Amino acid sequence: MALLADLPRNEDGIAAALGILAQRFGPRMDTGRALREQHGHTTTWLKNQPPDAVVFPHSTDEVQEIVRICATHRVPIIPFGTGTSLEGHVNAPAGGISVDLSQMDRILAVHPEDMDVVIEPGVTRKALNTHLRDTGLFFPIDPGADASLGGMAATNASGTNAVRYGTMKDNVLALKAVLPSGEVLQTATRARKTSAGYDLTRLMVGSEGTLGLITELTLRLQGIPEAISAATCSFPSVEAACNTVIATIQYGLPVARIELLDALTVRGVNAYSRLSLPETPLLLVEFHGSPAGVAEQAAAFGEIADEFGAGGFEATTLEEERNRLWQARHDAYWASLALRPGAKGISTDVCVPVSRLADCVTAAQDKTAEMGFVAPVVGHVGDGNFHVLLLIDMDDTAEVARAENFVGWLSDLAISMDGTCTGEHGIGQGKAPYLVRELGDPAMQVMAAIKAGIDPYNILNPGKIGLPT
Amino acid sequence: MALLADLPRNEDGIAAALGILAQRFGPRMDTGRALREQHGHTTTWLKNQPPDAVVFPHSTDEVQEIVRICATHRVPIIPFGTGTSLEGHVNAPAGGISVDLSQMDRILAVHPEDMDVVIEPGVTRKALNTHLRDTGLFFPIDPGADASLGGMAATNASGTNAVRYGTMKDNVLALKAVLPSGEVLQTATRARKTSAGYDLTRLMVGSEGTLGLITELTLRLQGIPEAISAATCSFPSVEAACNTVIATIQYGLPVARIELLDALTVRGVNAYSRLSLPETPLLLVEFHGSPAGVAEQAAAFGEIADEFGAGGFEATTLEEERNRLWQARHDAYWASLALRPGAKGISTDVCVPVSRLADCVTAAQDKTAEMGFVAPVVGHVGDGNFHVLLLIDMDDTAEVARAENFVGWLSDLAISMDGTCTGEHGIGQGKAPYLVRELGDPAMQVMAAIKAGIDPYNILNPGKIGLPT
Repeated sequence: MALLADLPRNEDGIAAALGILAQRFGPRMDTGRALREQHGHTTTWLKNQPPDAVVFPHSTDEVQEIVRICATHRVPIIPFGTGTSLEGHVNAPAGGISVDLSQMDRILAVHPEDMDVVIEPGVTRKALNTHLRDTGLFFPIDPGADASLGGMAATNASGTNAVRYGTMKDNVLALKAVLPSGEVLQTATRARKTSAGYDLTRLMVGSEGTLGLITELTLRLQGIPEAISAATCSFPSVEAACNTVIATIQYGLPVARIELLDALTVRGVNAYSRLSLPETPLLLVEFHGSPAGVAEQAAAFGEIADEFGAGGFEATTLEEERNRLWQARHDAYWASLALRPGAKGISTDVCVPVSRLADCVTAAQDKTAEMGFVAPVVGHVGDGNFHVLLLIDMDDTAEVARAENFVGWLSDLAISMDGTCTGEHGIGQGKAPYLVRELGDPAMQVMAAIKAGIDPYNILNPGKIGLPT
Repeated sequence: MALLADLPRNEDGIAAALGILAQRFGPRMDTGRALREQHGHTTTWLKNQPPDAVVFPHSTDEVQEIVRICATHRVPIIPFGTGTSLEGHVNAPAGGISVDLSQMDRILAVHPEDMDVVIEPGVTRKALNTHLRDTGLFFPIDPGADASLGGMAATNASGTNAVRYGTMKDNVLALKAVLPSGEVLQTATRARKTSAGYDLTRLMVGSEGTLGLITELTLRLQGIPEAISAATCSFPSVEAACNTVIATIQYGLPVARIELLDALTVRGVNAYSRLSLPETPLLLVEFHGSPAGVAEQAAAFGEIADEFGAGGFEATTLEEERNRLWQARHDAYWASLALRPGAKGISTDVCVPVSRLADCVTAAQDKTAEMGFVAPVVGHVGDGNFHVLLLIDMDDTAEVARAENFVGWLSDLAISMDGTCTGEHGIGQGKAPYLVRELGDPAMQVMAAIKAGIDPYNILNPGKIGLPT
C-alpha cells in the first residue's frame, strides 16, 4: 500500500454532522465498517481511507441538505458513484461523509429530436444505453467499468471510441451541481453551442468532486450507426502499428475505435481465450457509418496497414464476426491479469502526441523488461493514450515501491514528450505528484485559487488533484 | 448608442503606467485618438470607450512586462486581436491599456503527424490556413471575419462548420496566457486527451480576456477532405427546413455545414447578386469525405429534404459549382445590409435546442414584423444557432432603443426554450444583462469567485461578462 498520509480530522465537527445526518436520514446513513471501506478506495494500490459514514440521498434537495450540514460543521464530503475510479478519488484522507449518489438513478428526460438526455448522476452508462435502445440513439463514452455517469463526468472519463466521439468533456452539454454553499449551480442550457460566460460545464467535468456534487447531467447522444465494420491486423512492431494509426488519421478515415494490444497482451489473450493470434502487436479498428461508407473505410484502412507490413488483415460488418475479431480486446484485462495469477493490476494512463506514441510505448516496454515486471500494454492509440498494466504482488512492499517508481518514470517520460500523466483516469491521489511537473506552478496556483474561491473551507473531497490541504 | 456607463478611472495609476510604458515601448505605444477609438469598440451599437493607449508587444516576455507595469499601478488591460468581436469586448469602460497582439503573429511549429500547430495569438484564421495549404491540413473554425486566433479563443468563436468540427473549445488543445500576476500559465500539453486537473484550457477559452492574456495557442488541425459535396434546396417554410435539419442529423449524416437563409435574406441575395432563387427559406449543406461517401450523403440528404417538401435540390462536388450554389450564403451579410441602404446591422446570436429552432425563428420573424424592423435571418441550424440581423438607423435613438428591446426579448425567448443568449459571439458588454437570467445567481457567483481568485484587483478587461466591477 502506497502514498498519501491521512490529513488532520475535525473530530468534533464530524461527530456533530454524524448525529444530525443519522437523525435526518435514518437507515439511509450507514456507518458500518465494510460499507465504509468499500466507499474508501479499493481498486488501486492506494491505502484505503474510509469515510466516517455513507449517506444515500434521493434528490438534489437532499444533497443540498447534506452539504449544508457538513458545511456548517466543516466536515469533508466525498461524492461516490460506483467506486470504479483508479486514482483514489473516493478515499477520505481527512474522514468525513461519503455521499453515495447511486440511488439518484432516474432518467429525467429523453429528447430524441435534440439527441440529448437529462439524467441523475447515479445512472450507469450501460443502464442509459439499455434505456435508449429503442430510440436509435446511444451514449458513446465507454470506460472499462459500468461506471456511473456522474462519476464519469467528475473524472472526465473516456475509453475506446474517444477518437471519434470525444471524452466526457465533449459530451456533457450542461450539469447541475450542489456547491459548498448548498446552492445549486446550473452551468449551461441544452443549447448545443454556447459562449455564455466562463465554461463552468467543463470546469466541473474533471474536477473530481472538489468543486461541487453533480446532481444532474444533460448529455449529448449519437445516432446508432447504420453499419459497423470491424477489422484487425497484426504488425511486426509497435512502431509499424503506430505509423499505421498516424496514416489512418491523417488520411481522414473517420475511425470510431483504434486499439493497440502489444505482443504480451496478445499472448495473454491467446492463453486465456484459446486463440491463435500471431503474438505480435495487434490493431483493432471499427468504423461507423453507412454500409458503403464503412466498407470503403475498412478497405482503405487495409491498404494503409499493408504499407506498414501488416498481416492477417480481416474485416467484417457482421455482428458475430465483429465480436470474434474484437474478442482479444474484450478479454484483454482479465487475460492480462491471468499472465501472473494472484497479482493485482496497477494501471498507468499516459497520453502523448501520436507521433511520440511508438517511442513512448517501446521505452515503457524496455523499462518494464529491465525492471523485471510482467506488464502488458493496451492503448487507445488514435488519441495517443495507453495503459501499461503492472502485474504486482501487493504483499511485496519492495515490488510495490518499484511499481511506484515506474509510474513516476513513465509519467515523466510522457511529460517530456509534451504529453500528460493521465489521459482519462484523472489525478485523484495517485497522480498528484506529477501534475505540477506537467503544468508548472502557475497552473497549480490557478487551480488552487479556483478551489479557494468556490470552496473556501475545503470541504469538498479534500486531498485530491494536488490541491492545498 | 446604447448601454453601459463608464466605470471609475484610476487616473494616477493610468498616468504612471503610461509614463513607464512610453519609456519602455517607445513608438510601440500609441496614444493617438484615432487608434485608440479604433481599439475601443466600433463594430456594434455599443458606445465607443477607447483605451488610454495601445501597446504592441512582440513576445510573451513583453506581455509579462506590460501586465506587471499595469498590475503595479492597478491599471486595466484590454487584450485586442483584430477588433471584430460584436459585443463590446474591447471597450475600455474604465480606461487603461489596450494590448494589441496583432504583431505576435508567428507560426511557431507545425506538427503534421500530430495534426496540430503552435501559434502566437495574432495569427488570423486565413493566414493560418494559407500557411498550412501544402500540408493537406486545415483549421476549420470560420467566424465571418478574418479574426485573430487569440481573439477567436478568447470569445469561443465558431461559424458555419461547428456542426462537424466543433467550436474553439473543441479545437484548442492547450494555451499559454499571462496571468494578472505576470506569470505565464500553461494550461495543458499537446496530448489529444487529458484528465490532468481542472480544465484550464476551456476555462481560458471564452473568458474574454478577463483571466489572462493568451500569448500562445496549440490548435488541432483537420485533414483537408478528399472530396466536398455541396447542395442547396428551397423549402415552403422555416419549419420544413428545420425538420429537414433534425432528420439529417438524426439519420447520422455527417454534415459539415448546414445553413439556413430565411426568405428575406434570399430576397436580399437575389437583388444583390442578381440571382433568381425562390424567395422562400433556403438550406445550404456541405459534406466532407471520400468521393463515394459525399455522393451518398448528398443523395441521402436530397431524399430527406424531399420528404419535407423541398424544391430545387441541386448537389455538386465541382468547386466552381459549389461556389455558385453557396453564393447566396457568401453574399448574405452584404446583401442583407443592402436591404436597407444606410442602415447598420445589429446581430443577435441566440442558440436553442434544434427541436425549438423553427418555433424560435418563426417567433422572431413575427416579432420583427410586428415591430416594423427589416431583419433578415441566417442560421447555423445544425447547432440551433441563428442570427437575426436588425437593420437599424443608428441616428434614430428611439429605433435603437426598440432594437435593444428586441435583443432582450429574443434572448429571453431563447432562454425560455432552454437555449442561450449567445451561441458564438460571447457576452462582452452587450449580453451582460441576459447572462444572469440564463444561468442564475449561483453561476454568476462562481464566475465572480473564479475572477476574484485569479485577478483580485480586477485589472483584466473589467466590466465584461457581467462580472462585478
